[in-house]
Amino acid sequence: MELGPHSRPAEPGRCVSGSPSAGSAFPASRVSAAGAEPGSRPTAVAAVLPAGGCGERMGVRTPKQFCRVLERPLISYTLQALERVCWIKDIVVAVTGENMEAMRNIIQRYGHKRISLAEAGATRHRSIFSGLKALAEDQPDCKLTKPEVVIIHDAVRPFVEEDVLLRVVMAAKEHGCSDYDLEFGTECLQLALKYCHTKAKLVEGPPELWKVTYKQDLYAAESLIKEKISQEICVVVKTKDEESVGHLLKEVLKNELNCATITSTALDHSGGDIQNFLTDQCCSFIWVTVLSSDFQETRKFLTALEESSLPLLYPVVVVLVHCLDFTLVPPAQKMESLMWIRGLAKEVKKRNVLLSGLLINYSQDEQKLQESLQQGASIIAALVKERSPALAGQLLVA
Amino acid sequence: MELGPHSRPAEPGRCVSGSPSAGSAFPASRVSAAGAEPGSRPTAVAAVLPAGGCGERMGVRTPKQFCRVLERPLISYTLQALERVCWIKDIVVAVTGENMEAMRNIIQRYGHKRISLAEAGATRHRSIFSGLKALAEDQPDCKLTKPEVVIIHDAVRPFVEEDVLLRVVMAAKEHGCSDYDLEFGTECLQLALKYCHTKAKLVEGPPELWKVTYKQDLYAAESLIKEKISQEICVVVKTKDEESVGHLLKEVLKNELNCATITSTALDHSGGDIQNFLTDQCCSFIWVTVLSSDFQETRKFLTALEESSLPLLYPVVVVLVHCLDFTLVPPAQKMESLMWIRGLAKEVKKRNVLLSGLLINYSQDEQKLQESLQQGASIIAALVKERSPALAGQLLVA
Repeated sequence: MELGPHSRPAEPGRCVSGSPSAGSAFPASRVSAAGAEPGSRPTAVAAVLPAGGCGERMGVRTPKQFCRVLERPLISYTLQALERVCWIKDIVVAVTGENMEAMRNIIQRYGHKRISLAEAGATRHRSIFSGLKALAEDQPDCKLTKPEVVIIHDAVRPFVEEDVLLRVVMAAKEHGCSDYDLEFGTECLQLALKYCHTKAKLVEGPPELWKVTYKQDLYAAESLIKEKISQEICVVVKTKDEESVGHLLKEVLKNELNCATITSTALDHSGGDIQNFLTDQCCSFIWVTVLSSDFQETRKFLTALEESSLPLLYPVVVVLVHCLDFTLVPPAQKMESLMWIRGLAKEVKKRNVLLSGLLINYSQDEQKLQESLQQGASIIAALVKERSPALAGQLLVA
Repeated sequence: MELGPHSRPAEPGRCVSGSPSAGSAFPASRVSAAGAEPGSRPTAVAAVLPAGGCGERMGVRTPKQFCRVLERPLISYTLQALERVCWIKDIVVAVTGENMEAMRNIIQRYGHKRISLAEAGATRHRSIFSGLKALAEDQPDCKLTKPEVVIIHDAVRPFVEEDVLLRVVMAAKEHGCSDYDLEFGTECLQLALKYCHTKAKLVEGPPELWKVTYKQDLYAAESLIKEKISQEICVVVKTKDEESVGHLLKEVLKNELNCATITSTALDHSGGDIQNFLTDQCCSFIWVTVLSSDFQETRKFLTALEESSLPLLYPVVVVLVHCLDFTLVPPAQKMESLMWIRGLAKEVKKRNVLLSGLLINYSQDEQKLQESLQQGASIIAALVKERSPALAGQLLVA
């Protein structure tokens, strides 16, 4: 998929725990969950990502950190996870000379910030050393802050959360290691214990922190990312009326996707609020109209969506839902008038927005209406969970 | 999904290397691939599956061996993999008392053969011991053959292939262990070395043999199973003419799914050959008609499919492809006449057959035709790979 340069996001990984200038970088709840003291926050934390591996165990030619998951290189997800933690000031990625240019392109294309590159060595340890050296350099043109604690994190562990990183930093401060490894029980820890004459502490990581090593791990990563981005769905309705079909559909969707957050927004006719429901959390939009579609409004929304950073990071699913009584208007007849969706879908698909149409039978018969809503919710759930580009542009019937 | 009792298959795991009575149970190529001598085949091999785990690392209440992958319990896939190896005479599954009834239901429902049950102990070793005891018993009513070699195989490693099992058996014969563990480097091997006063040999397993332990492993298993069953596609065409749209579509599909085997069958008008293309290897059927659909023939095929064991083991995808010139007949108009597919799809979905309709623009313009065929192939690939029940019954347009 080709995306033009102007679609580069301003900031792909918005900070999850508030800006450091706004007070503490560690909200009290997070710190207390991590079992550390609120007062002990480190002043300068950096991260080094050894990413010089060649991926031989994966059985593919592309090194695993560059393998694509939902069309984006795996390492970009790991960078995004680290960027979202505002108290990590600098992130140094150690890549081999031959992958340096590819890595620069990834940083530029996905708008990553606070990233520096270092040349990877022949082994993981040499790559880490090279990353640390970049942070320690006393060059006048060096923009990196000399850190107090350095987190060493594998480029192929994309599911790292702030609380684990915080626990690692706290443990490093307490136990005195100057750099620290998230991989417990690995050669790194053994080396630290053997040669560094320093204490070391094992920080237990959650199972989600696992390392992408084999082909099956890439599949698992894709499924987990799809699950994660399907957790939030925005239902856009044209009326505030709680009895409307949009609100009914929202309720059925809540049951269908039982762990998802489903927000609904009643559309302001001035169209001025379109930007409001474009957050970096939500990649699935269900746009419900009871009567005929408003092409202009939909087009405006899709343009705002395309111009945001959202579809650059994830495929965005948009389902235009039309409700009508099939006994009055046969679905095939309505489909004819909705053929414009196909053309529009083809256009926005180029920018990673997957648009589909869905006709729901708004029957006067209560049971039939419930059945249609249920089927509609199942179809929406499948579109949201699978994010299949091949099925964009279709008109589906419930 | 509810399936009636009469849909139980006669034999879900047909033997992959020929019947033992037909000569050698190990085809020469397999044995040579495994590096063993052709003359050294063991006379009696059994397998014991410790399946008493409670799945606490999975983070779900269901023990992982009973977690569902494509609606079927994981252990059923492992049993299927072992059953396909004809020289494994008996398979003993050790389950806890409380799961005994559930396990019996799984065996009956998915038609597993050569399976006996033993009660699992408090630890994995006690469960193995219990399984071995069942095989060693000298009871007059015991139908199990006393084996020469016993393979101990985890219930949560569904991707085991015959060649690895054969290498294990050969190594066991050579190195004298009476039971053997596929998990190299585990506590089992250590115990064998420490207490059994016997030689032990490490048999390297492929990465695909990995153990389903965490939630992400279930996702990976599902993706791998989907990938596996998407490797064979049967395109049914009504004409032998190599220039026909069915054959053109087949060629485009070959490029789209580049590692899949795509066979095509020209339909005999007597309908007598429908059974011929129902094998246990193929779970995806693309039924191409250029003119209007022949409802009777399609119905007959779907009935044969429902009566086979196929949809009990995997969701079967059937795509009815209709080709027409959209400039002569608008797709919406054709959709109206194909609304019967929706009703039929609802009916066969109850028996795990996922039916969809696909309209392809059979344009006179060569470029437009190629575009439609390409889009059609992408849609078919998505339906075959994703096997989403929610999208069954839809009429798609390419």
